[in-house]
Amino acid sequence: MSQVLHFRLIAKVISRISFIIAVALLISAGVAVIYKEAVLPFVYSLLLSVLLGVGLDFVSRRTEKKAIIQRKDAFFSVTLSWFYVSLLGSLPFIFSGAIPSFVNAFFESVSGFTTTGSSILTDIESLPKSALFWRSLTHWIGGIGIIVLFIIVMPSLHEGGYHLFTLESSVQEKIHPKIRSVVQRLFFIYLLLTGLETILLLAGGMNLFESVCHSFGTIATGGFSPKNTSIGGYSPYIQYVVMIFMFLSGTNFVIHYNLLKRDFTKIAKNEELKFYIAVTAIIGVVITLLLVFNTEKSVEESFRESFFQVISMITCTGFATEDYLLWPKIAWMIIFFSMFLGGCSGSTAGGIKMVRHLLVFKNIRLFFNESAHPQAVFRMKLNGNAINETTNKTILSYFSTYFLVFIVGSILLVTAGLDAGSAASSAATAMAGIGPGIGTVGPASNFAHLTDAAKLILTFLMVLGRLEIYTVLVLFTRNFWKD
Amino acid sequence: MSQVLHFRLIAKVISRISFIIAVALLISAGVAVIYKEAVLPFVYSLLLSVLLGVGLDFVSRRTEKKAIIQRKDAFFSVTLSWFYVSLLGSLPFIFSGAIPSFVNAFFESVSGFTTTGSSILTDIESLPKSALFWRSLTHWIGGIGIIVLFIIVMPSLHEGGYHLFTLESSVQEKIHPKIRSVVQRLFFIYLLLTGLETILLLAGGMNLFESVCHSFGTIATGGFSPKNTSIGGYSPYIQYVVMIFMFLSGTNFVIHYNLLKRDFTKIAKNEELKFYIAVTAIIGVVITLLLVFNTEKSVEESFRESFFQVISMITCTGFATEDYLLWPKIAWMIIFFSMFLGGCSGSTAGGIKMVRHLLVFKNIRLFFNESAHPQAVFRMKLNGNAINETTNKTILSYFSTYFLVFIVGSILLVTAGLDAGSAASSAATAMAGIGPGIGTVGPASNFAHLTDAAKLILTFLMVLGRLEIYTVLVLFTRNFWKD
Ligand SMILES: [K+]
Ligand SMILES: [K+]
Repeated sequence: MSQVLHFRLIAKVISRISFIIAVALLISAGVAVIYKEAVLPFVYSLLLSVLLGVGLDFVSRRTEKKAIIQRKDAFFSVTLSWFYVSLLGSLPFIFSGAIPSFVNAFFESVSGFTTTGSSILTDIESLPKSALFWRSLTHWIGGIGIIVLFIIVMPSLHEGGYHLFTLESSVQEKIHPKIRSVVQRLFFIYLLLTGLETILLLAGGMNLFESVCHSFGTIATGGFSPKNTSIGGYSPYIQYVVMIFMFLSGTNFVIHYNLLKRDFTKIAKNEELKFYIAVTAIIGVVITLLLVFNTEKSVEESFRESFFQVISMITCTGFATEDYLLWPKIAWMIIFFSMFLGGCSGSTAGGIKMVRHLLVFKNIRLFFNESAHPQAVFRMKLNGNAINETTNKTILSYFSTYFLVFIVGSILLVTAGLDAGSAASSAATAMAGIGPGIGTVGPASNFAHLTDAAKLILTFLMVLGRLEIYTVLVLFTRNFWKD
Repeated sequence: MSQVLHFRLIAKVISRISFIIAVALLISAGVAVIYKEAVLPFVYSLLLSVLLGVGLDFVSRRTEKKAIIQRKDAFFSVTLSWFYVSLLGSLPFIFSGAIPSFVNAFFESVSGFTTTGSSILTDIESLPKSALFWRSLTHWIGGIGIIVLFIIVMPSLHEGGYHLFTLESSVQEKIHPKIRSVVQRLFFIYLLLTGLETILLLAGGMNLFESVCHSFGTIATGGFSPKNTSIGGYSPYIQYVVMIFMFLSGTNFVIHYNLLKRDFTKIAKNEELKFYIAVTAIIGVVITLLLVFNTEKSVEESFRESFFQVISMITCTGFATEDYLLWPKIAWMIIFFSMFLGGCSGSTAGGIKMVRHLLVFKNIRLFFNESAHPQAVFRMKLNGNAINETTNKTILSYFSTYFLVFIVGSILLVTAGLDAGSAASSAATAMAGIGPGIGTVGPASNFAHLTDAAKLILTFLMVLGRLEIYTVLVLFTRNFWKD
C-alpha cells in the first residue's frame, strides 16, 4: 500500500493548499474588521490552517528532494483537496455561530468550493457580512482551482501516459510550455474579469460589498448571493451585466487567453465556442418567444429574464431573477433539460459540457456518413485536429456514467428521506453544480430541511460532478490500489 | 429521386405484408364467428388488405425479374411497414365501432404492433371478444416481426456493407446460412413458447380465450390484456407462469434456437444472458426485501409481486399485478429506472437492451485498465469475440441519441397539452415500449384523455423506440436521399 501513494508528496500539496486558504481567511478577517464584526472565528480558522500547513510541510520535508509527484498521487490529491478545503472552509461558519451545525456548515462549504451554490441558509441576510464574504470567496477559490486543474494539471498528467484526461488534453491545446507563467496569466484573466464585473456593478449603483460578492459568484459560476432575493431585486442593467459575465465565465479560459494574446485565428477555429453561442442563442430565443406570447411580460422583460435564466442554467451558475417554476410549462421544461448542457470545457461552468455534446453529434453524423458511403474513410475532427479514439470513447462513455451516478444518487437520496422528484432534481443539480433544484429544493427554496444523510450524499455528488466523475471514481477501482 | 429507392421492390414487400395481415384478419373473423359477433368489420378489413396486396403485387411485377432489394429500400420498407400494418390494424376497430375515433384506433394499433401495450381503452371488457383477440394478435405479429427483423434482416443488411446494424450482426452470430430455414425455426420457437404458455395458463384454470390472448401479450412482451385488471385478478400460479414466460421472451431468441439444437456451449458463452439474469435477480431481490420490511405483505407475496413487476419492467412487457405507485418510494423509483434497462437483443423486449449496458460497463472498465497500465494493450470482447470499433461507438452513441429523442419527445408532448411529469414518463414508456406510464398515464390509468396531437406523437415515439431509433432516423438524413 505504501508504494502506491507517496503520502509525503501528497502532504506537500495539502500543505500548500492550507496556506492558500489561510490567505483567503486573512482577507475575510480584514472584512470582519472593516464591518466591526467578530474577527476571532477567522483568526482561529486561520491559525488552524497555518498549523496544518506547517505540520504537513514538516512531514513532507523528510522525502527525498528529487521525488516528483506521480499520477496516482495527483489523482488522490485532487479529490482529497476538495474535501480538505471544504472542511477548513466550514470552520468560520461554525466558529462564528453563523451555521452552528457541522453538517450544514460543511454542506455550505462544499457547495461553495465546488461552485455549486446550493444553500442551507433560510435567511441569508441575517449572517454577518464577513461570513457572507467568506461564503462568496469559497466560490472564487473553487473557480480558479477548477480552471488550473482542467487546463494545466489534467493535460500534464495525460502527457505522462495517463489516459484519464484525454478529453482536456486533446480538446484544449497545449497553450504554453512554461506552466508557472500560464497559471499566472490565467489567474490574471480571472482577476481581470472579476475586477471588471465589480466596477460595472458599482457603476449600476450596487454597493462595493455586494458587487464583490456577486462578482465572485458570477466568475466562478457559483451562484451564492449575499441577498435573499439573489439578483432578482436589482435593476435590469445589473441583470444584463451579470448575464454577460456568466456567459464569459462559461467560456473556455483558453479563449480569453488567446483573446489577450490577440490570437483571433485560434478563437475562430474553436468549434466548442460556436456551439456554445449557437445553443445559448437558440434556447434563449425560444424561451423569449414563449414568454412574450404566454405571459403579460414586455418583449424586453421576456428577453432579459429568458436569457438570464438560460445562461444561468447552461453555465450552471444558478443565479435566479424569476421563479421560473411560474413560467409556462414548456419553458420550465426546456430550462430543466438545459442543466445537462453545461458550459465550455476549461471554464468554471459545471454540467456535462458543450464539447461532449458536440462530439456526440459528430459521432452520429460520422456514423450516418459511414453507413451511406461504406467505402469512404471519414475522420472526426475538432477545432481542425483529428480526435484520438480513446478520447472519443471516453467522452461517449461519460454520458452513461453520468446517468448511472445520477440514478444511484437519486435512489440514495430517496433512502435518505427525499421524495422522488426532489431526489432526482437535487441529484441532477448537485452533479451539474447548478444550485437550486426543482420541487422542495426549487429556486425559491433551499436545502435546509433535508436530513443530514441527504446533505452528505449531496456534498459527495457535488464533488463528483465538479471533478468530472472519473477523477474521483478512479480512486474506487482495484487497479488504482495495485502496485 | 427515383434512383434512390426502388418503389416497385418496396411495393412487393408491402404486398407480402398485406397478405400476412389478411391471414391474421381471417383468423380474427373466425373468432368473431365462434363468439357470434359481427364478422363484417373483419371481412371488410380483410378485403381491403387483399385488394391492397394484389394491387401492390401488380405494380411490383413490372420490375425486372433479377432486381434485388437494396439497403436503402430495406430501411425505407421497415419503417413504412410498421406504419402500414398499424393503419390496416386500426380498420377492424373502426369498422366494428369498438374504437370509433381514427386517432384512437391508430394509437391502439401502433401500440399493438410495436408491442408497447399502451391503451386508450377505459373499459377493455366492453369490447367484443373478436376485437380483443385482434388487439392481442397485433402484439403477436409485431413480436415475431421484430425477431425476424433484428436476427435476420438487419445483420444481412450489414453484411452488404451497411454499418447501421453492426450491433445486431456482431452481437448475434450468424446462426444459419439458409435464411428461410432460420426464419421457419424462429417462428417454430415463437409458436412453441406461445403454445406452452397457453397450455400452462389453461392448466391454471384460465379460459381458452384469455389464455391465448395473454400468451400473445406475454411472448411479444406486449402487455395488452383482455381484462380490465390485467393479470392482477388471477391466481399466484398464473402470475408465476406469466412471469416466467415474460422472462423467456426477453431472452435472445438465438439462445432458444441454440437450446433447441442442444448447443449448450454457445449458451454458456453468452455474456448478455448472464448479465440479464444477474440484473433481474439483484433488482428483484432488493425490491422483495423492501416489500417484506416496509409493507404488510408476506414473503411469498413480496417475492411474487416484486419479481413480476421487475421482469415486466425490464422486458418492457407492462403487465401489472399491483399498482406499484402504492409501493415504498424507493421501490417505485427503482422500478421506474428499470424501464431503461430493456431485455436482451434479439428478443421481443423493448428498452435500451442489456447488451448495450454491458458494453458501457466494458468500456469503462477498459478505460480504467488502460489508464492504470498505459503500456498494455487491452481488447474488448463480447461472448469471446473481439468487438468491432464502429459497433462499439454506435452503441455508446445510442444512449445520447436515446436521451435526446426522449427530451425532444417530452417537450413536444408538453406542447400537446401534457403536464411535465406525464410527458416525460409517457415519452419514456412509449420509447421503451413499456405501456403504462407514471402520473396521469400510470399503470392504473390509460391514455384515453390525451389530446390527438399527443397520441400521434406517442405513436411516432413507439415506432422509433421499437426500431431502435437509427433505422427510422436514417430516413431523415440528407445522405439517405442522395444517389
Ligand atoms: K452553480
Ligand atoms: K410492452
